[in-house]
Amino acid sequence: MIVTARLTFSAAHRLNNPKYDAEWNRRVYAKCDNPKGHGHNYVITVSVQGKIDPETGMVIDLKKLKDIVRRRVTDRVDHTNLNEDVDFLQGVIPTAENLARAFWQQLAPAIDQGTLHEIVLQETEKNSVVYRGEDE
Amino acid sequence: MIVTARLTFSAAHRLNNPKYDAEWNRRVYAKCDNPKGHGHNYVITVSVQGKIDPETGMVIDLKKLKDIVRRRVTDRVDHTNLNEDVDFLQGVIPTAENLARAFWQQLAPAIDQGTLHEIVLQETEKNSVVYRGEDE
Amino acid sequence: MIVTARLTFSAAHRLNNPKYDAEWNRRVYAKCDNPKGHGHNYVITVSVQGKIDPETGMVIDLKKLKDIVRRRVTDRVDHTNLNEDVDFLQGVIPTAENLARAFWQQLAPAIDQGTLHEIVLQETEKNSVVYRGEDE
Amino acid sequence: MIVTARLTFSAAHRLNNPKYDAEWNRRVYAKCDNPKGHGHNYVITVSVQGKIDPETGMVIDLKKLKDIVRRRVTDRVDHTNLNEDVDFLQGVIPTAENLARAFWQQLAPAIDQGTLHEIVLQETEKNSVVYRGEDE
Amino acid sequence: MIVTARLTFSAAHRLNNPKYDAEWNRRVYAKCDNPKGHGHNYVITVSVQGKIDPETGMVIDLKKLKDIVRRRVTDRVDHTNLNEDVDFLQGVIPTAENLARAFWQQLAPAIDQGTLHEIVLQETEKNSVVYRGEDE
Amino acid sequence: MIVTARLTFSAAHRLNNPKYDAEWNRRVYAKCDNPKGHGHNYVITVSVQGKIDPETGMVIDLKKLKDIVRRRVTDRVDHTNLNEDVDFLQGVIPTAENLARAFWQQLAPAIDQGTLHEIVLQETEKNSVVYRGEDE
Repeated sequence: MIVTARLTFSAAHRLNNPKYDAEWNRRVYAKCDNPKGHGHNYVITVSVQGKIDPETGMVIDLKKLKDIVRRRVTDRVDHTNLNEDVDFLQGVIPTAENLARAFWQQLAPAIDQGTLHEIVLQETEKNSVVYRGEDE
Repeated sequence: MIVTARLTFSAAHRLNNPKYDAEWNRRVYAKCDNPKGHGHNYVITVSVQGKIDPETGMVIDLKKLKDIVRRRVTDRVDHTNLNEDVDFLQGVIPTAENLARAFWQQLAPAIDQGTLHEIVLQETEKNSVVYRGEDE
Repeated sequence: MIVTARLTFSAAHRLNNPKYDAEWNRRVYAKCDNPKGHGHNYVITVSVQGKIDPETGMVIDLKKLKDIVRRRVTDRVDHTNLNEDVDFLQGVIPTAENLARAFWQQLAPAIDQGTLHEIVLQETEKNSVVYRGEDE
Repeated sequence: MIVTARLTFSAAHRLNNPKYDAEWNRRVYAKCDNPKGHGHNYVITVSVQGKIDPETGMVIDLKKLKDIVRRRVTDRVDHTNLNEDVDFLQGVIPTAENLARAFWQQLAPAIDQGTLHEIVLQETEKNSVVYRGEDE
Repeated sequence: MIVTARLTFSAAHRLNNPKYDAEWNRRVYAKCDNPKGHGHNYVITVSVQGKIDPETGMVIDLKKLKDIVRRRVTDRVDHTNLNEDVDFLQGVIPTAENLARAFWQQLAPAIDQGTLHEIVLQETEKNSVVYRGEDE
Repeated sequence: MIVTARLTFSAAHRLNNPKYDAEWNRRVYAKCDNPKGHGHNYVITVSVQGKIDPETGMVIDLKKLKDIVRRRVTDRVDHTNLNEDVDFLQGVIPTAENLARAFWQQLAPAIDQGTLHEIVLQETEKNSVVYRGEDE
């Protein structure tokens, strides 16, 4: 059984790899490399897999799950610049892929009922990524 | 190949385990334990897995699948109180997890083309569960 | 200029006019008259009309508007039974129309920047009402 | 008859009035005043009112309307920092209200079939504004 | 008070004015003039304005309103070719504008509690029209 | 890591197997067998699985992925009649299942970073299919 919580946050970011020059970055990231940044309303969907506790009828209390996600992720990234303001993203190019993996690292150790199953991070209506902890 | 039908129903429920006292229930279920109940517009998404029939180009006729879901589940729970009005939910604490498992038990035997693959039950925009028949 | 805030709440209700007998109520309200109730995830959208304050660039701070709606409406109706638990709905048949008008009466006096323009109350994906304070 | 086109863009912004000190800005804009900015996926909905041309059955060709909105607004604000990168927003505090009015000024003169009726600018799922050209 | 019902239908259509030649039609309608047609999932939202009946708490029973819309409009256009299969659309170029007006003519005389206020017809996520009975 | 792009197209189709007579087709496909066709706004969601390139922080550039989907699929089916206008669908009964498999065959060879993981094809809000390349 999998339970899923959906939360949102709004943030600015710029895609740029400082190891490479401006031409490389413009070619790879196009307008996502805009020097002053741009931004998104991100939607993060966190899934936890486990057995139903027969006493409560729940895998994990969704209020508790949402509190964990807020404390560990969304309160720390909401209304920030992801390139500059977030301690656990220092040195990370804030693509959706890298963000999903970084959020996984924040969340997996904090889930103590069931196990973290999947993070879906939606950047726009058209773009999203799914991460299930591969390569960890 | 998986085919998926989305249906909705509206119902009242209260989360409460009668084996425990009021204090336990308030701590575990918080405002979901409101004595007079509360309610939701549930969204149920039913997926069936199978091979494409080369004569029809379909795994299962979605009209037929929706008829099964309506007859076996949504017509029996729509505009009801899930704690009191539904025969197959007697004695079940109506959490989303328990509902998804109970709906699976109603639907799995009735699918005769392909096999039931997954039930997603969405309680609100923010909360949902996924059940794939584990432990059956 | 109109600014709009969208909030949600989940509640149980039953449509029944105690002045009339069971047959009348069943004919008028059909399954919405289920004795043990049913429920919805309501979406309330509150619009305020006013001029842009040139110092702030805002008609009304949307955080402040949402605080008012929460304190005056959604915190009082969320996870309740609308027929029984809500003081300002005593004696009101909780149709979407009557709810929208009752919410208007709670909100209009509390808006002190701009004026309340419109309440949209969505009961399901398919049913909603719009109220602009007529007949007040 | 009103015809409506929906477009999207993603941008960073910061709410800050440079006429006032940090304390004033923090009190008025709270986390929207984050110095490095934050961002949104904006949804802009542009409505044009007019008569149906009996030869074409259309008020205005929606492809043409969308071309105007792209050329005059969304191509100029998409993947930008609204405080710094957009010529027609110089000196404008980029609240949703001020953006809607600025977009109106860009669009109204360019609509030559029918007249611009309404701009809805949605900043998040929860916050939006409606502007109909008042005070122009 | 306005009450609103949302219904859907799926249909094929082709935009083409037979009074004009192929070149004119291609220029005006572009790919919407594809000779074998294309199609949409239309969303029709019908609003009725009236007073709340104090006995029922309703302006008009939404079940009854939806029955009228189904019988007069959606059952007659769902899973059809709008250019060829629908009696009340003979000779009408099936643009969203013309469809909204034709649907209004079908619905307005059938609403006997309150009055028809507005029809919104959404052709795609990006394109819609609003009709309020002007010029009738 | 899975990255996902969402695109849309609008098309007409008719479900009919010419090997069988009118009675068989009417029984199997019901109103989907309407001789002049009907249509949908399809939503296609394409997922690619791969490792994050540490230089770019991306599995595959979503702009590039969307260009592939447009060139290979949506530009060829948008505003067409799926039974008659599309070369790679000749002889295919255009059910959602058969379309998803045909789109897979167009896309899989063209993905050169990561591998095609899943195609979701949504025909209406209520009906969709998921294909992951089984039986290829």
